[in-house]
Amino acid sequence: MAKNLTISVLYDFYGELLTEKQQEVIELYYNEDLSLAEIAMHSGITRQGVRDSIKRGESQLLELESKLGLARRFGEIEQLLDEIRKNAAEIDQINNRMFGSAEIDNRLKKINELTRSVGEL
Amino acid sequence: MAKNLTISVLYDFYGELLTEKQQEVIELYYNEDLSLAEIAMHSGITRQGVRDSIKRGESQLLELESKLGLARRFGEIEQLLDEIRKNAAEIDQINNRMFGSAEIDNRLKKINELTRSVGEL
Repeated sequence: MAKNLTISVLYDFYGELLTEKQQEVIELYYNEDLSLAEIAMHSGITRQGVRDSIKRGESQLLELESKLGLARRFGEIEQLLDEIRKNAAEIDQINNRMFGSAEIDNRLKKINELTRSVGEL
Repeated sequence: MAKNLTISVLYDFYGELLTEKQQEVIELYYNEDLSLAEIAMHSGITRQGVRDSIKRGESQLLELESKLGLARRFGEIEQLLDEIRKNAAEIDQINNRMFGSAEIDNRLKKINELTRSVGEL
């Protein structure tokens, strides 16, 4: 099975709702990039057991997202913040070219910082 | 028991993860503002049964938030957007007072719209 970037993102949102075992194997598989065989060795279960546990965890993550859609909502917020940054950058260019206002410049820097800090929440 | 605004917010985020029965009683209690007695009559279960179902649903919503913290994260994003709007409003004042640039004004309007549309996601 191919490692799926979406799963890694969904795990960041909903991982706490999986069982400890599922969290462990998904962490090792997606975040530590171990193979199924390596995780089997590490966890003392069979390769097939690891595979099943990952598959069940993945199904649950996908079902949680289809019910709650919070990863999608955060993704859309990221896009809006990107648009805000672009508009702020355009104001910065206009200001630099025509007015050179330090007062405007300060506020634009602040807006830029604020949009960046959302990603860290 | 006092109706709790927090529960209503958490229900918006995580309601889909509750059982159908819990969703029904919480909807009626929080969104339709019915009393326990009214919900009991409507659902054909006892007042105590309604109360227990609401309590279990509330516990689950609180536990989901303590594990995932998504309502808190969205709340913090709302605060940051509010800060962005304030800085944009200050730029607007400076622009109106000193430069009267329609180009800047257009971008500020766009930033304002973008911050408002996050709330609708």
